[in-house]
Amino acid sequence: MTAGHPVTTDLPAMDTAGRLARLRAGLPAAGADALLVTTLANIRYLTGFTGSAALLLVTADQTLLVTDGRYRTQAAEQLDAAGVAASVALTIGGAVVQRDAVVALATATTGIRLGLEAENISWAAERRWAELLGATELVPVSGVVETLRQVKDAGELARMARAAVIADAALADVVSLLGTGATEQEVALALDTAMRRLGSEDRAFETIVASGPNAAKPHARPTDRPIETGDPVVIDFGATFDGYRSDMTRTFCVGGKPAAELARVFAVVAEAQAAGVAAVGPGVVTGDIDKVCRDHIAESGWADAFEHGTGHGVGLDIHEAPAVGQGSTAILTPGVVVTVEPGIYLAGVGGVRIEDTVVVTDQGCHPLTGFPKDIAA
Amino acid sequence: MTAGHPVTTDLPAMDTAGRLARLRAGLPAAGADALLVTTLANIRYLTGFTGSAALLLVTADQTLLVTDGRYRTQAAEQLDAAGVAASVALTIGGAVVQRDAVVALATATTGIRLGLEAENISWAAERRWAELLGATELVPVSGVVETLRQVKDAGELARMARAAVIADAALADVVSLLGTGATEQEVALALDTAMRRLGSEDRAFETIVASGPNAAKPHARPTDRPIETGDPVVIDFGATFDGYRSDMTRTFCVGGKPAAELARVFAVVAEAQAAGVAAVGPGVVTGDIDKVCRDHIAESGWADAFEHGTGHGVGLDIHEAPAVGQGSTAILTPGVVVTVEPGIYLAGVGGVRIEDTVVVTDQGCHPLTGFPKDIAA
Repeated sequence: MTAGHPVTTDLPAMDTAGRLARLRAGLPAAGADALLVTTLANIRYLTGFTGSAALLLVTADQTLLVTDGRYRTQAAEQLDAAGVAASVALTIGGAVVQRDAVVALATATTGIRLGLEAENISWAAERRWAELLGATELVPVSGVVETLRQVKDAGELARMARAAVIADAALADVVSLLGTGATEQEVALALDTAMRRLGSEDRAFETIVASGPNAAKPHARPTDRPIETGDPVVIDFGATFDGYRSDMTRTFCVGGKPAAELARVFAVVAEAQAAGVAAVGPGVVTGDIDKVCRDHIAESGWADAFEHGTGHGVGLDIHEAPAVGQGSTAILTPGVVVTVEPGIYLAGVGGVRIEDTVVVTDQGCHPLTGFPKDIAA
Repeated sequence: MTAGHPVTTDLPAMDTAGRLARLRAGLPAAGADALLVTTLANIRYLTGFTGSAALLLVTADQTLLVTDGRYRTQAAEQLDAAGVAASVALTIGGAVVQRDAVVALATATTGIRLGLEAENISWAAERRWAELLGATELVPVSGVVETLRQVKDAGELARMARAAVIADAALADVVSLLGTGATEQEVALALDTAMRRLGSEDRAFETIVASGPNAAKPHARPTDRPIETGDPVVIDFGATFDGYRSDMTRTFCVGGKPAAELARVFAVVAEAQAAGVAAVGPGVVTGDIDKVCRDHIAESGWADAFEHGTGHGVGLDIHEAPAVGQGSTAILTPGVVVTVEPGIYLAGVGGVRIEDTVVVTDQGCHPLTGFPKDIAA
């Protein structure tokens, strides 16, 4: 149910075929001669294959995609479209690890150090591979493909920009619902539906529409609470285009006139968010972006009310590397995409979060998300 | 973004509080004195807690839920609502494995055999726990909670029935779109929207609407293909109510008159599916249900065209134990819920799949899914 159909698009092509060479170049530093890729988003990134069951073996001189018979045609078509040269081994039925594939893997990995994606592969699967590939040394590897994925190419950025534009347009369609008596759930449904109509394959994650006191919960799910005049309304949502996701948060105040304390919260979060975005650029340590936002909020007296990290990478996954939080040590380079989303949450009162997704450029960054930040809905 | 809000409902309560005792009773056979539960659906099942970050430690005499500060109130409320007596340890921020929680776990597990859910926990996480809990023997455990989850109590069955009724009603709303020129994507969106309006928290999985030749792909995603007169249209979808999912497939023929070969395919699949449902009952081995469906299709000459298993368990997950496929060895008991969904897929021509979700009863089974099986749309 997660197989992809090709997206016909006018957007620039992605450099899928160049990625395997970059992966191979990074394996020695990870202590591996080869990598067994089990994370589906990583397989998609490296080969263009979008099926829901796959393994990808990358050795120094071989690329072997193992999937099942349902994906015979799709695998061939997608590898070809991406210009990726790989053998394809098919297994029978839905079980990925079948005899033929194991033999192929064992042959290709005899005597070498085979990296497994340790944060993804289950302990049980690692034990099965250890038993099946007795002559292969298994080594835990973390984040090798994820590090490559941080830097988006022009084709990826175009897809992310398209997803962001769809989300902007959907919010423009829906924002007039605020204050009409519509509930959080009704607004969320209208937003999800608008994104689909505008070409989103699916929402990028479960849409958040949190109003009044619910806005004080960063992880709130939409409820049947009718949105009322004076409410802060946090709307955090995204679209998906050709697998790539967008992520944006706006907080509105229905009627445009927040009560005294909330008015200040709106202003402080907007300032902190703008300062955070201004801090994004090449060579910047991501923890310093968090510090800029956090310090501004702390100076305003709400240090304890900003209870999550400032942001995260986005791409094929809604949360991917690099982290942008307290003490994060990643260093930004052009092409990296991160969110900047500080917030202040006051239990029983409400909350405000403002989020943009930005691309690091040679000089600084530019935003993918474009919806205006006026608080009046 | 996956935190739950309580569902207020008129449905019978679930026996959440009784489950931990049944889990404890099953641990010795799994070779463990205690279990560290990391599968979120299993944590929800055992405690009622629906947060998106949690660990649950179950020892002979202790139950410790570890989550983060965002879920302080929710965890207390949900454990209380479920009548589950457990300690709650909170960690700081979003990272689950923090110092306090580790100390609590280490203290509780010193000198005992601690089972880890080996199919769920990552190899990297297992390695971290092994290092942190030096005095604890870690043992791989598979399927212990999943086996308990197979047998649904009255509260669970009522939730699954509600999800199925929502799906039935949504399909009734939408079926008139077939043959009006609507595309697969438009029908899927209408169905998803109708389910949400009718009270579904989310679709149970990505809705399949596959028409004409696309119906030959069991895992097709909705495309922009307009559905035409004479097309077979496979619609496979489900709703979610209070976490529990429904799953149903109907195949329509727009205009009601399939071409010659397809007419026979419709008839054979309907016969195979009815025979499969008739075979479901207490004491039945699930592989025998698959055999009933598969034999009927093979006798009709399409052995190679039924390219997936006959069914699967459903509940908090859309695919859960028991499997209903070739060689499956699970034995059904009253309260187990499975799908029966044979299909025939002819490349370039089309396909037919019919699926019901049924509950095993004392005498046989009864269906949760109720939409009529008339092929005319």
